[in-house]
Amino acid sequence: MECNGKCDSCKIKDQCPDTKKFFIQQENKIKERMSKIKYKIAILSGKGGVGKSTVSTNLAVALAKRGKKVGLLDADIHGPNVPKILGLEGYPEVREGEIIPLEKYGVKVISMANLLPDEKTPIIWRGPKVSGAIRQFLADVNWGELDYLIIDTPPGTGDVQLTIMQSIPLDGAIIVTTPEELSVLDVRKSISMAKMLKVPILGIIENMSGFVCPKCGELTYIFGVGGGEKAAKEFGVDFLGRIPIDIKAREAQDKGVPMVLMDCRAKEEFEKIIDKIIEKL
Amino acid sequence: MECNGKCDSCKIKDQCPDTKKFFIQQENKIKERMSKIKYKIAILSGKGGVGKSTVSTNLAVALAKRGKKVGLLDADIHGPNVPKILGLEGYPEVREGEIIPLEKYGVKVISMANLLPDEKTPIIWRGPKVSGAIRQFLADVNWGELDYLIIDTPPGTGDVQLTIMQSIPLDGAIIVTTPEELSVLDVRKSISMAKMLKVPILGIIENMSGFVCPKCGELTYIFGVGGGEKAAKEFGVDFLGRIPIDIKAREAQDKGVPMVLMDCRAKEEFEKIIDKIIEKL
Repeated sequence: MECNGKCDSCKIKDQCPDTKKFFIQQENKIKERMSKIKYKIAILSGKGGVGKSTVSTNLAVALAKRGKKVGLLDADIHGPNVPKILGLEGYPEVREGEIIPLEKYGVKVISMANLLPDEKTPIIWRGPKVSGAIRQFLADVNWGELDYLIIDTPPGTGDVQLTIMQSIPLDGAIIVTTPEELSVLDVRKSISMAKMLKVPILGIIENMSGFVCPKCGELTYIFGVGGGEKAAKEFGVDFLGRIPIDIKAREAQDKGVPMVLMDCRAKEEFEKIIDKIIEKL
Repeated sequence: MECNGKCDSCKIKDQCPDTKKFFIQQENKIKERMSKIKYKIAILSGKGGVGKSTVSTNLAVALAKRGKKVGLLDADIHGPNVPKILGLEGYPEVREGEIIPLEKYGVKVISMANLLPDEKTPIIWRGPKVSGAIRQFLADVNWGELDYLIIDTPPGTGDVQLTIMQSIPLDGAIIVTTPEELSVLDVRKSISMAKMLKVPILGIIENMSGFVCPKCGELTYIFGVGGGEKAAKEFGVDFLGRIPIDIKAREAQDKGVPMVLMDCRAKEEFEKIIDKIIEKL
């Protein structure tokens, strides 16, 4: 069989010496890049919409504000939201085969959102292509020396999570959940997966815990309360903290200003959570 | 090369005559099953946590209450939530190579959640295996004659959505979003995908629109308002309706009682949405 250069549809790609060589080279590149990064932390959740991207972005920005060198890898290929939260536009430069990450609020960022022509273009990719993109983000992006690389993942326990957990030695995983039963149900799966793949779990963050009525000040636990803490106890992992629902913070975030840059309760909670994380690492 | 029966890791499975035969047989089975179902509707969203499972389940139960024959396929393999919302436990029976769907509130249901040994076991599967499971749900489950098959999908535009859109002739897709910018951003991708794959879009449902303080009655648009309507206009698709946040309804749902079986505003909205859907089909 003659090589036509179309590896994706090649029937014998698994036996191809060139493909094997490429994988080994990529593996080595990932190892080298990751060796320059002190702490590699993945943000996981079983369920979507619990605020993984919000937590990832705010942790990254808050760490950068403390003078740390921070990178943020948006591994949600199908629904990349990090740039929206950061108000980050533009395309990353490619220099001598290396992708130069964009930068905002002192954080180096790579996201599929900055590689697409517009906001409505979907990435209709099956698993192997998604995993390939993630590996490229790890191998070809010039992260340089970092204290922290925060990896924002899509929900679930599928291709992306497997690829990340198998490709780099993670220093920890943080699990994000909302308080209600449905979300906690899926958290259990993420914790089990991290344990099976021997990734140390730093703890659980409960997001959207309670809402204060802007008119009368009444606190209502719209999505319940305590689900994150319950799951933490059940699995013997730490409970890192609770982020309240804050309309002003959410509105600012829709405009590209992360909560931790505002004066709000969510910010205080994030700071406490970061103290705990730093202590644990 | 001798066959060792391990198709998953086989290097030449694409050329294997047995595999091809299996696929053709499965294809035919899916066609036959689907021909007995009048309307096949997929519930999509770009982002997770917007309430796809809540919408899917409540639509299914409300249709059944109107005397329709309804099936509900939970295609979220990694985070199957439908059985929790329905309070549905137990394993489906297998009879003569056919899977007999479970039933609750008059709806036939198949979900990965009822095939796992417990709630915390994660399904750590890459894309091809996930697609295989979906195709099995379509081919091997004895749905019988149905008026409606509602398909609850995971978030995104990846393997599962592709498999469903390519395996069965869908009569329509309903897109679910929450009102805030971040979610609407991802909705655009789902709409584009459906259009690219020529699936007719029935419309957009906006979930979690506004919260009424139980103490003072103040209505607050926690996640903003109107994002779904805006996206509908932008893409020239119908806006089907708005489901408010309702604590009592959510609490009931945590206990396995879908909102449409309660006396609440969410129920009224669902009924209006169903009128529109029936009219459109």
